[in-house]
Amino acid sequence: MLSEVRGGSTWVKAVVNQTAAWFVTAAVLAGCAGLPATDPLPSWNEGATKSAIVKLVADTTRAGSPDFVPPPERIATFDNDGTLWTEHPMYVEVLFTLDRIKAMAASNPSWRTEQPFKAVIDGDRETIAKFTEADFFRLIAATHAGLTGAQFQKAAADWLAVAKNPRFNRLHTELVYQPMLEVLAYLRANGYKTFIVTGGTQDFVRSFAEKAYGVPPEQVVGTSFEAKYAFTNGVATVTAEPRLMLLDDGPGKGIGIDHYIGRVPIAAFGNSDGDLAMLQTTTNSPQSKSRPRLAAIVWHTDAVREYAYDRDTHVGRLDQGLTLAPQLGWFLIDMKKDWKVVFPYELNR
Amino acid sequence: MLSEVRGGSTWVKAVVNQTAAWFVTAAVLAGCAGLPATDPLPSWNEGATKSAIVKLVADTTRAGSPDFVPPPERIATFDNDGTLWTEHPMYVEVLFTLDRIKAMAASNPSWRTEQPFKAVIDGDRETIAKFTEADFFRLIAATHAGLTGAQFQKAAADWLAVAKNPRFNRLHTELVYQPMLEVLAYLRANGYKTFIVTGGTQDFVRSFAEKAYGVPPEQVVGTSFEAKYAFTNGVATVTAEPRLMLLDDGPGKGIGIDHYIGRVPIAAFGNSDGDLAMLQTTTNSPQSKSRPRLAAIVWHTDAVREYAYDRDTHVGRLDQGLTLAPQLGWFLIDMKKDWKVVFPYELNR
Repeated sequence: MLSEVRGGSTWVKAVVNQTAAWFVTAAVLAGCAGLPATDPLPSWNEGATKSAIVKLVADTTRAGSPDFVPPPERIATFDNDGTLWTEHPMYVEVLFTLDRIKAMAASNPSWRTEQPFKAVIDGDRETIAKFTEADFFRLIAATHAGLTGAQFQKAAADWLAVAKNPRFNRLHTELVYQPMLEVLAYLRANGYKTFIVTGGTQDFVRSFAEKAYGVPPEQVVGTSFEAKYAFTNGVATVTAEPRLMLLDDGPGKGIGIDHYIGRVPIAAFGNSDGDLAMLQTTTNSPQSKSRPRLAAIVWHTDAVREYAYDRDTHVGRLDQGLTLAPQLGWFLIDMKKDWKVVFPYELNR
Repeated sequence: MLSEVRGGSTWVKAVVNQTAAWFVTAAVLAGCAGLPATDPLPSWNEGATKSAIVKLVADTTRAGSPDFVPPPERIATFDNDGTLWTEHPMYVEVLFTLDRIKAMAASNPSWRTEQPFKAVIDGDRETIAKFTEADFFRLIAATHAGLTGAQFQKAAADWLAVAKNPRFNRLHTELVYQPMLEVLAYLRANGYKTFIVTGGTQDFVRSFAEKAYGVPPEQVVGTSFEAKYAFTNGVATVTAEPRLMLLDDGPGKGIGIDHYIGRVPIAAFGNSDGDLAMLQTTTNSPQSKSRPRLAAIVWHTDAVREYAYDRDTHVGRLDQGLTLAPQLGWFLIDMKKDWKVVFPYELNR
């Protein structure tokens, strides 16, 4: 991936390699034979959003363009759940957390009588359905506490290797959005550094983001916990404590971008009201006017190929975002209309 | 600087230009005429540390090498104060903080009677000399509180444009270490991503790191504050609160690396006991054995050209590090013996 090999002598090779290969080939063909350039977003139908993305890339990378953006400023941020992969019927990390709490129950006997753990261990759906956000965060924190990032990521990766979405009977990592993979690759092929800014825990998303999206760990900004450093018997470890350091959701996404990235993104992609701060930071920061900016919302409109939901769901609710989008010039990505395919496996049919 | 010419289509030119120019020339010469490659670290005397750095780069980048490291894992971390620039007679951010508190006094009248602010405003050196770490952090927090990162960085950059080190009568940004600039450039020219992991606040270091070191904001990990996101009158801002989020010093450097980078560095450079966790994380994490690792300490041994201090200073104290270095295989960079020049301006004499 481009982002992974952005270094000096391998830079040129990196641009030529990987996902970018088609792009170079296309440029060569177009240049040499007068052919039109290959479509950089082949899974997208023609429309306002696709045009805006292609125009943004052209305007910000063409030498001499008034909207040229120097590479260090080429930052694009992506929400994960519902923006890069399927979040229905339930956030994947929540599904992992419920399974993981059950798996950890044997070594935590006190949980058998203590809520919210008891309901999870007993499979008490009625009680689980009434869990508050605080209950969920207590469970999520418990899956991290006392573990190093590597240990947690191993547990998450092992689970992701087998756990399936109940409707599609596919691994969750198969239910990433092909059109968004193309946006990631297209931006990176044009010198953009792609970040994930997720409400999920950063260790959960780091457990698959490099393989699934080509996004290395240092470009995953997520919810994190306080931690404890120890150097014991000659071994250095950082283990999580069950207290939030940053809740990287809602307003926390603005803080996460400020703290981890320190620049206003040129482009940002989200799908729910949890992404408003990320999108506002992109288009409406004091610095936003100095460069072109693009914000877009993946709008789940396709009940046949994926799911259809917006204002009336508890998982990835999109309510204020639908109202704000036209006011702030954000694009709505209508999955049903804008995407030729949703998942990568459809390409092999 | 590399960063200034890092622009888009000019990226390739940038890599070829500047500090990296010798490298390309060297490769061409060595390849074409059988000449020895040009020295990648010309300000370093031959010695164990220089050899180790050159060997690490060769071993980790040569195709087919048993120690080859894929580019995404090529992470190197650098402390800032005393490792990349001069920290005596006092940490630069502390000098900035004292000046800044005075500048802010007019709009904070209550400070005139309230310690630790009063002593700073009165220039009461005796009281300032007795300040605890908590006092300093209260002052530092006050310089950030209520400001956005961009506002704070503007104030810091304005100050850095004129404030001078009292002994050298030079701007602080002129007192960066030429040999370390060469290490940064050499690693980057070989596909390494260079991070600063600083006990200073990340907004202070971000205000100059890109220009001085070619390190972009997202690769500056530092002390940070809790923050507040707001979207008011159509403007998105993140302003600092006067409470620490991460004290990125001592054990905090282990946590900073875990949270912001999420990988064990291949190489790390520090200079004080505040860097032990960073160095230990590099060489002694459970994952460390899977790759070559290098840790080195800049040892301030040159009272003539810079400063000489280790166990007996309150600014950049190096005590445990001197004991641990031989036990853990860390290199000591003896400034007096290992460096031909200390500061870039010496090259123009």
